[in-house]
Amino acid sequence: MMAAMDEQRFPVEQLHGFAARVFAHFGVPAGDADRAAEVLTAADLRGIDSHGVARLHFYAEMFEKGRLNPRPNFRVLRSSPSTATADGDNGLGLVVGPRANDLCMEKAESAGTGWVSVCNSNHYGIAGWYVLQGLPRDRINWSMTNASKLVTPLWGNERMLGTNPIAIAFPGQKEPPIVIDFATCTAAYGKLEIAKRKGAKIPLGWAVDREGRDTDDPDAMIAGGALLPLGADRDHGGHKGYSLALMVDVLSAVLSGANWGPFVPPFAVSYAPPARSVGKGLGHFFGSMRLDGFIDPAEFKRQIDDVVRTLRGTKPAPGTSGPLIPGDPERAAEEERRREGVPLPESVVRNLRDVAARAGVAFE
Amino acid sequence: MMAAMDEQRFPVEQLHGFAARVFAHFGVPAGDADRAAEVLTAADLRGIDSHGVARLHFYAEMFEKGRLNPRPNFRVLRSSPSTATADGDNGLGLVVGPRANDLCMEKAESAGTGWVSVCNSNHYGIAGWYVLQGLPRDRINWSMTNASKLVTPLWGNERMLGTNPIAIAFPGQKEPPIVIDFATCTAAYGKLEIAKRKGAKIPLGWAVDREGRDTDDPDAMIAGGALLPLGADRDHGGHKGYSLALMVDVLSAVLSGANWGPFVPPFAVSYAPPARSVGKGLGHFFGSMRLDGFIDPAEFKRQIDDVVRTLRGTKPAPGTSGPLIPGDPERAAEEERRREGVPLPESVVRNLRDVAARAGVAFE
Repeated sequence: MMAAMDEQRFPVEQLHGFAARVFAHFGVPAGDADRAAEVLTAADLRGIDSHGVARLHFYAEMFEKGRLNPRPNFRVLRSSPSTATADGDNGLGLVVGPRANDLCMEKAESAGTGWVSVCNSNHYGIAGWYVLQGLPRDRINWSMTNASKLVTPLWGNERMLGTNPIAIAFPGQKEPPIVIDFATCTAAYGKLEIAKRKGAKIPLGWAVDREGRDTDDPDAMIAGGALLPLGADRDHGGHKGYSLALMVDVLSAVLSGANWGPFVPPFAVSYAPPARSVGKGLGHFFGSMRLDGFIDPAEFKRQIDDVVRTLRGTKPAPGTSGPLIPGDPERAAEEERRREGVPLPESVVRNLRDVAARAGVAFE
Repeated sequence: MMAAMDEQRFPVEQLHGFAARVFAHFGVPAGDADRAAEVLTAADLRGIDSHGVARLHFYAEMFEKGRLNPRPNFRVLRSSPSTATADGDNGLGLVVGPRANDLCMEKAESAGTGWVSVCNSNHYGIAGWYVLQGLPRDRINWSMTNASKLVTPLWGNERMLGTNPIAIAFPGQKEPPIVIDFATCTAAYGKLEIAKRKGAKIPLGWAVDREGRDTDDPDAMIAGGALLPLGADRDHGGHKGYSLALMVDVLSAVLSGANWGPFVPPFAVSYAPPARSVGKGLGHFFGSMRLDGFIDPAEFKRQIDDVVRTLRGTKPAPGTSGPLIPGDPERAAEEERRREGVPLPESVVRNLRDVAARAGVAFE
């Protein structure tokens, strides 16, 4: 694959090492910094470019302003054999999230399943990273997080919910796993930004302007409009996407004691703080289910192989090469990027060099 | 509300009593028959007319042909402290589902959460009934089921998945609960049937014809086309709806050892059997989470009230009265129908009288 004119490719190891050095510079212990860098660059590898090193300067800025705790005291507030609620002590979500995910998998060790709700955290990278961790252990892992407001409820005209993603993965035997990871809005904010950069229009159904009218202009959404939930309008199931976003918000934040809905703190320091505080930080929700709590794991994986092959055998829609399996595009991106390097636009490279200079950390 | 010209209203108690007598006629023990009738008529009360007594003649036909076991031996095949897999012994889904849901709630009693996957079952009514059972016990209940094929994966042109619904409910304190219950396709099959009866067109994005072309003709879908997953096309997140339908299928059927995807047995005896069998019957998945495994239940419910009021306060989209809370329409239908009776179209009344005559059971 050719890099676009304004893109440069970097080995993922370089980006990983750089991110870890930046986190360590801000006081994150070496082990945590390394793992946080792993989670962050998983986004770059898997082609979810908006969630990878392109965000590093936001993290750096948050540390510089003292808005993130580099050495959080991760505390379990409440627990039962299969559940726990944890307080992330305002640490990096990239540190708090993996720790909660580990706790969830430990709970399942004895109880069959583990479910952990987390408050007082921050952005945790891609939801998909967490569910991939369950696959080699014969687990079905779940991962959700809330996020600062961008999406309007159906029939609303105001940002009230985050893009609140859901991820879950199912291991196969000979076939690759089914890896589901999606935001509960129609289209991710990153896609609007790409359209804006290109001066392109967006499809109707992605967003409304500040008056609540359908718009094909990305700027009209960015300037005070809102994203639409998956389904977009009533006829096409917009109430379903809205329900999913709300479900993620309740499980991640109401259940843990974090901020929910329009009160989730923004990621960037330049945004105005929410109107009020209804909890601590933002929230995540993790689950881990042992396959052998339900069925012989070998039988499960054999059936998943059959499911995957059966779905690949679906008669293709006209003009397509047929259905994909969830996770196919990300796996293809990862293979290509491990081989060829991660393509970064010039603007992101400039940002990284700026972070390097300010933190006194080598980029190369 | 006026009944339409071809509609008659019936007290729900009459429909409940009739359905229970019909099930008992076919050998279902009295307690099971009564509960099955309760689950069935919950659909009529809540306005999900396609899943209520309109289906009774299908159940009767299945019993007549010996395709349903009136006295199933519900067996737990495997379990851990928080999980179980159960075999429904080809019983009525309206009997097997509630039993599995009870088991799930019992598991949670000691483990904090309970998760039950069920094979060898049949259609279980509305997903929402199961999650309502958790509310008075301070639980968050989950419910999913797979169903016979109607939906194509994104970029496919063939029925491969069911309309596979997801339900989950969250209790409030002074405000009504949030009750989420939706099929993972863009629009339910029942809506196509209504359009067909009226000779009306359907919105683009609901279905494709047998050639895989977008269609606004309900007949074109019915005659060998397919429903589209929530999101409909790639630009509008059709891969997300497809992922959700697949998730429900795996949790309900692969995890339990039931038939999945295109191999789920059809509901009506007149349909051709699937190409092959990959498991037993169809499958459900239930979850029950104790609120107090995560947080003080009173605090959770207070926050849910705040969520509900905050969302109701969203600035309305032009031409609407603002966002609803998931569960609002069903609750409104239930209030009205408990008061005024359940409206049934003439065709359904004829079907019920026919069932009454064949079973030798009084309808009135």
